[in-house]
Order: sequence, then structure tokens, then C-alpha cells
Amino acid sequence: MLTQSTYSTHITEAIEQAQFPTDPPKLYDPIRYILGLSGKRVRPLLVMLGADLFAFEDMESTIPAALAVEYFHNFSLIHDDIMDEAPLRRGAMTVHKKWSENVAILSGDALLVKAYEEIARCTPTKIPALLKVFNRMALEVCEGQQKDMDFETQDLVAEDDYIAMIRAKTSVLLGGALQMGAILADANAEEQELLYQFGVNLGIAFQLQDDILDVYGNPENFGKQVGGDILCDKKTILRIHLQQRVGAQDAVILDNLVSEPDAEAKIQTTKELYAKYEVRAIAEKLKEDYSDRAYEALSKIPVADQQKAALLDLAQNLMVRTH
Amino acid sequence: MLTQSTYSTHITEAIEQAQFPTDPPKLYDPIRYILGLSGKRVRPLLVMLGADLFAFEDMESTIPAALAVEYFHNFSLIHDDIMDEAPLRRGAMTVHKKWSENVAILSGDALLVKAYEEIARCTPTKIPALLKVFNRMALEVCEGQQKDMDFETQDLVAEDDYIAMIRAKTSVLLGGALQMGAILADANAEEQELLYQFGVNLGIAFQLQDDILDVYGNPENFGKQVGGDILCDKKTILRIHLQQRVGAQDAVILDNLVSEPDAEAKIQTTKELYAKYEVRAIAEKLKEDYSDRAYEALSKIPVADQQKAALLDLAQNLMVRTH
Repeated sequence: MLTQSTYSTHITEAIEQAQFPTDPPKLYDPIRYILGLSGKRVRPLLVMLGADLFAFEDMESTIPAALAVEYFHNFSLIHDDIMDEAPLRRGAMTVHKKWSENVAILSGDALLVKAYEEIARCTPTKIPALLKVFNRMALEVCEGQQKDMDFETQDLVAEDDYIAMIRAKTSVLLGGALQMGAILADANAEEQELLYQFGVNLGIAFQLQDDILDVYGNPENFGKQVGGDILCDKKTILRIHLQQRVGAQDAVILDNLVSEPDAEAKIQTTKELYAKYEVRAIAEKLKEDYSDRAYEALSKIPVADQQKAALLDLAQNLMVRTH
Repeated sequence: MLTQSTYSTHITEAIEQAQFPTDPPKLYDPIRYILGLSGKRVRPLLVMLGADLFAFEDMESTIPAALAVEYFHNFSLIHDDIMDEAPLRRGAMTVHKKWSENVAILSGDALLVKAYEEIARCTPTKIPALLKVFNRMALEVCEGQQKDMDFETQDLVAEDDYIAMIRAKTSVLLGGALQMGAILADANAEEQELLYQFGVNLGIAFQLQDDILDVYGNPENFGKQVGGDILCDKKTILRIHLQQRVGAQDAVILDNLVSEPDAEAKIQTTKELYAKYEVRAIAEKLKEDYSDRAYEALSKIPVADQQKAALLDLAQNLMVRTH
């Protein structure tokens, strides 16, 4: 077993060394551009850690699957940014802003195909199983993005529907990445499923934490604007529970906040309502539930504890204490 | 060997029976919609005929690959129609017009993943080879679409570049479909390559013919508006050769035609220039060259002539006499 940072270095090098054609430039320049906006590369790392968990020896052979997951993630960012009309991504211009929507549509498509090219470069006997997991995951991510957009025009969103949305939009990719690693390491179906559940539940907990940190996070290390979700009226887990519990009088206040021009006042009043209806505790509890489920799934995988250290470490880094 | 129409019926039934989820509706309704706008289904038929050529017996097992190709084609239509701002497709509203651009982007993405799901349903031992061919083809189609868009803002396009564009944008899909059939039927690498060349060259000839028919076709059976390419200043093979040969005086006339408001006059003057510079004959010759290359490749495949009858029949149906 190598250290996590060695794997991360491997991944960074593999992405840097990946060769994309130069022609046509409008198809491949945006791909090089988005892959160059270095993110945390958590997802490809999960592929490698998923294989490492089972003491897989041929770690070099996990690189194509790791790249496939990273390419897929970046494809989804390019297309989601068009749909969300986002001007910035990782502090830089989004592809559709830097070039055009057409360029973003088509280079996104090409990057999705590039992800499948990496699947095709995996160990041939593993390709059918990898392809199946990758496809299911990819389709669920599309479903999650559509549900997320549907919620924008929906008055009330149920907790279950919200969880189903974040599961599909962001968490299955973490579970799928880990499962692909497990497949490469010849893990059996039950082990694969447990590792998948670890990733999916950890992903849900992480997203719930993101909703909480948006309101209660430390501005210095949150990495995004605190209160950003409130300002754009995003239906987070806090907002969803507030809407379910709010009294008639406060409901009017809440409705009026949509057109509140003073950002500070909007955030402050929303936080007061969150406090009054004690929604933070509900969200924290839900986050703990999913994080518990994640750790429970991992604990059931029959490998030595030391093999699990890297994954537990990663999970703990993702899960900061918010209270 | 079954007849071509039996295969076509198989394909139509398989598409009708394909189950797509109902939720989220905005993701899957557009997929059902575009697949329901019945096209000619030539591409999935080519997968089956590619296997049939080698007397493959388990024709039922070719259906997933045939569906993959048809899904891919429809994915590319959804996204191309956004990029080309096309209001109509097969006489019906395009997906982005009927729903929205966001819906068209995302349902297109999902349909591309669905195509890969069909690849995953193919005979497992064949999946690595099929995936490789499918990926190469998919990427070239993206490249072709980008080149086509690039040409719109380019003054002069060389014949070679134009051929490379139509090869990538439309012809490799025909070649790839046939090759996938050949892979399923255990054809060797040389046979696969010859069949691929047959499809690609036939596709180029077909596209050149389409350029010619736009100007000289019989309005009653062309299926599109005669002169449509001229009216939207499309860089067809005729236009490209005209621009290369036109004298200084006629070049001014040609430039002014871009802003000619009278459609009849625009078509008439363009046709006069085509006649003066004899570009039709050049285009016809080029079409014949590619069609000859196609037939030559097919003739080299070492199977009995009767096995080739269905493919020759299809090719002859595609290649009408234009002079």
C-alpha cells in the first residue's frame, strides 16, 4: 500500500500527460482548459483507494478507470455550468463564458466520450463490469441534475426527494468510483456493494454538511461565499425543513425574503428563522445518520483495519466537525 | 440470411419495446420523443447487415449494438439541432424548441449514456472491441460537427478539408456501424477494415450526392427544399469548387448574393454560376470516385457474392442516379 499522496501525484501526472488532439482547437482546447483548473481530484483517488483497500498490487492498471471518472466529472461540470448559467468555476471563467455555449456543449460531449475511451483502456476482462457501473452512475448523475433543476420551480420539496436528488447528482459518482476500484481488485459482489454504500452515504453526508457550512461555516476556510445558498434561494436541507415547519406569519416573511435587496438582511433574517425552527439540529442529525451509515458499510468489509486507514483518513478530512 | 425488411422490422420493434424510466419526465420524455420521430433507421440496419454479411447466425445478439448506434445518432441530432438553432427535425419540433435548451443538453447526454448501456448489453467478450470502435466513431462525429461549425465563419474551404469534415461528421458512423456488425460476426481485422471503408466511402458519396441533389434534385422526391443549401449560404462541395474557380467579376456577384433578398433570384444566379464554372461535373466525378472506392472495398471482402446482395441493394437505394 502506497500513501494517499503518492496516488494523488500519480493522478495529477496522468492528467498532465494525457494527450488530446490539437485539431479542431475549439473541441479540444476547452477540455485541456477545464482539466487544467486543478480541482481536488477526489474522485479518481477514490478509484485507486477502492482498489488499494483490497491490497491490489497492479495499481498502475487503475489509472485509466481513475481518469474515466475524472473526465466524466469534468464533462458534467461543463454541461451543468451551461444549464446553471454559471460564470465561474474554480475561480476561472466557465467554458461556455470563455468560448460559447455551442463549444461547451460539444467539447463536453467529446470529454464524455474520452471518459469511455479510458474505460476501453482498462484490463479487457474487467471492461464489461466497469462499463455497467460507469453507465448506471452516469445516468443517475443526469437524473440528479434534472431533478435539481426541477426543484427550482417547485414550491415544496420533500426531504426524501432532496436526498434522492443529491444522492444521484453527486454521491453515486463517489460510490461508483470506489466500486470501480473494487472491481479492478477482484472484490466480490458483496464487498463491491458495501464499498459503494460507503461512498454514496459519505457523499450524501458531505453534501448535507455543505448545506450547513453555507450558513454556519467559517468564512476563512469554507472556500465559498457564506450565505451564498440563501442569497440565491437555493433549496438546501435547511430551507426544506424550514418550509415544512414554518408558521403562517413567518411563511409570509420567508416569501418576502425572495425579493429582499439587502444581502446582509436576507441572510440575517433567514438565519433567525432557521434558529427559531431549530432546523440546524435536524440537518446535523441527518448528516450524522448518513455518515454513520457510511462507516457502518466500511466496517463490514472483511479486510484488515490497516487497509481501511487511507479511506477513513479521506472520509475524516471530508467530514469536518460543524458543531 | 433474412431479408433486409425483416431486420428493419426487428429494429423498429426493439426501439418500440425499449423501456425508459418515466422519472424525471424532462429527462426521458425527449428521448422517447426523438426516437419516436421515425427516421429511416439505416444505421442500426447497417450493424445487422454487417453481421449478416459473414453469415452470422445469432442475429438476435446484434440488436443491442444496433440500438447503440441508433441512440448515438439521435443523441447527436438533439445536440446538433441546439447548435444549429434548427426549429424542425423530421418535420416535427426539435427537442430544444419543444422543451428548452437545458432539457435538450441533458436528455442528449442521457441518450448518449443509454447508447453505452446498449454496448454493455452486447456479448461480453465482444464489448472491448465494440467499445473501441464506438468511441473512435463518436469522437470523430464530434470533431466533424466542430469542423462544420468552423467552416461557417471561414471564407475559403479546401476540398480536402470538406471531405474530412463530412467523413467525420456523417460517414464514420456508417462505417462504424458496419464494423460493429463484423466484430459481432467474428470477422477478422482485414475484413472489418474493408467493411468500414465500404461504409465510410459510401457515406461520403451519399453526402456529396445530397449536395448535388439540393440544386439539381427532383423536388418531388428529394424530401427537402431544393435550393435550401444555396439560400442559407452553406459551403457545399459545389460552392467550394465555385469559390476556387470563380473569376474576379463573378466573385463580386457571388459575394453580393449573400444579401440577395429574392430567394428565386438567389437560387437562379447561383445555378448560372455553377453552370458557367462547370462545378456540377466536378462534384459528380468526386461522388463517383467515392462510390467506386466503396464498391471496391466491398468486392475485396472474401465472402460469397450472394452474401453481399443486401448491402449492395442498400447502397444502390442510397445512390440514386443524378445525371
